[in-house]
Amino acid sequence: MDVKICLIGMGVVGTSFLQLLKEKEEFFERKFDLNFIVNSVFEIDGALIKEDGIDLKELLNKNKNIRNLPYWKNGVKPIDFMSKLAINVCIETTPTNHKTGEPGLSHIIEALKNQIDVISSNKGPFYLEYEKIKNLAKENNCILKYEATVASSVPTLSIRKNLIGNEILSIKAILNGTNNYILSRMTAENVNFAFALNEAQEFGYAETDPTLDIEGYDAAGKLVIIANDLLGWSKSINDVKIEGISKITPQAIELAKSEDYVIKHLGIAESNELIVEPVLIEKSSPLNINGTLNVIELQTKYAGPIILIGRGAGGFEAGSAIINDLVNIGIKRQTKS
Amino acid sequence: MDVKICLIGMGVVGTSFLQLLKEKEEFFERKFDLNFIVNSVFEIDGALIKEDGIDLKELLNKNKNIRNLPYWKNGVKPIDFMSKLAINVCIETTPTNHKTGEPGLSHIIEALKNQIDVISSNKGPFYLEYEKIKNLAKENNCILKYEATVASSVPTLSIRKNLIGNEILSIKAILNGTNNYILSRMTAENVNFAFALNEAQEFGYAETDPTLDIEGYDAAGKLVIIANDLLGWSKSINDVKIEGISKITPQAIELAKSEDYVIKHLGIAESNELIVEPVLIEKSSPLNINGTLNVIELQTKYAGPIILIGRGAGGFEAGSAIINDLVNIGIKRQTKS
Repeated sequence: MDVKICLIGMGVVGTSFLQLLKEKEEFFERKFDLNFIVNSVFEIDGALIKEDGIDLKELLNKNKNIRNLPYWKNGVKPIDFMSKLAINVCIETTPTNHKTGEPGLSHIIEALKNQIDVISSNKGPFYLEYEKIKNLAKENNCILKYEATVASSVPTLSIRKNLIGNEILSIKAILNGTNNYILSRMTAENVNFAFALNEAQEFGYAETDPTLDIEGYDAAGKLVIIANDLLGWSKSINDVKIEGISKITPQAIELAKSEDYVIKHLGIAESNELIVEPVLIEKSSPLNINGTLNVIELQTKYAGPIILIGRGAGGFEAGSAIINDLVNIGIKRQTKS
Repeated sequence: MDVKICLIGMGVVGTSFLQLLKEKEEFFERKFDLNFIVNSVFEIDGALIKEDGIDLKELLNKNKNIRNLPYWKNGVKPIDFMSKLAINVCIETTPTNHKTGEPGLSHIIEALKNQIDVISSNKGPFYLEYEKIKNLAKENNCILKYEATVASSVPTLSIRKNLIGNEILSIKAILNGTNNYILSRMTAENVNFAFALNEAQEFGYAETDPTLDIEGYDAAGKLVIIANDLLGWSKSINDVKIEGISKITPQAIELAKSEDYVIKHLGIAESNELIVEPVLIEKSSPLNINGTLNVIELQTKYAGPIILIGRGAGGFEAGSAIINDLVNIGIKRQTKS
């Protein structure tokens, strides 16, 4: 079966996705009879459009500027082309405005209105307008997947299917690698917050403007997405009680340590409430994960805690989550047709 | 769709499965249009057989001996009835002989030969005769599921589907809760092996004859099952290099501790080799999990390690894994029909 793909955003995640697709496309055709055809790639200033499919080798050739390819169209927007191109799946990987969710939100809405399945690595639309997007997908019989928005390739959302025989009751998670790195360094080296942040910036873990991370907004967005998906809630980021990590002192960390505790920045979804805040946890807890790792603890009804740990960020990590969503959509569409 | 079930073995796991099924059967009918009908339950000395379905409430009534129910048949064996009853799924939960895999192995083979899908919580057949069972399932177009054999409801095997966009390269795991409890206690309390084993026995974590656990045979069996399933190997337990934990001294644990290491009993599947042995790991490693928990670290090609942690044993834990396998078989058979 042919699956025609429109990719919006060719940054780190979009490019990693294309590289992985190129690496594995033959395998997917052989194993699942799925023939993935990328027929459009949108960037901020225009797009590559080729109805019969873009040659991924040409597209990923680092010595060529994609804007010099013969099928580059200057200035075109996805919003204008979505209804004109034959597209089965739209993959949204643009950077998002955390207050409006744009431009990703409009891309997703336009795709769904045109009966195009959507895969997104773009958190904003989902923590701001989940209910709207979900309903729109339902009305248009579209599949909506967004594993990469939460903890990259750690199967946080898709694990729901593996637990049909169980019930997920609540969630505790460390969802921001930058903050976890900073707290881990403060704990291990007894340095202050500013020093650890500076180090995280030098290593490229923290942005130049780290506000969204350290104030807890990024983790809160991911927590909303997980809770809505796994617990069946319909919350937005405005429902989260958020406290960041910038006020944590080396003294507080020392005090915790002396009692065999550590301070971790947890997202908690429990009893219909969403909270992101620094929390004392026992040193021996599986939630005591160091470095930039993410951890998600699902409290289940029949098997206690089930815990997932892995890298929460990175191009190939997110790219492989997108590929996974894509193959699953392909298989689902195959059995339905 | 009706799904007719034969359960073999009504011990802790089999009974927990029935209780969960009773609790959730209405939900599954409503949500997935799957109507589960248990039409036979085999015990060692006979069976309950009722073609139109056994009333689960009656079956689970603790005040009644199932052998007094009117549809109890004394002395009948699953092997004689498998071809006569209308059965879609056979659920195998008998205790196994670790050298022969019997009686589970024969039950599974008989079910597959009769085109009956199989779910098993019974490790023996899979670590002894995986190739044979797998091929038989293939020849007969049967679905074969055995999530509960490895780490109960922790989705160790079913996670392969969540990682289609990635590749699993190798595995490290703690797969035996008894051994992990013993080593955790030896590390925390500086007691010797015999003391910790005795404690584990008192708490019911270790069997009266703990040989299969402490000598590493149980962990080796599970490692074989994971490696065959996730890495596509065709090994048996005879291919595993096994070393148990009974020779570990408090001195060795102290020495490790002083260097910020702990001793854990790991199963490792890497470079076409299977090993179960005590290994030094860093204290801060996510593999450093305490108590009776299991941990499975999958090294992936595109996203580094992805780690799963949870309870590796328990009736409801295994029961919910079986239910999960069952619903997935139901859904698969629905879309195929």
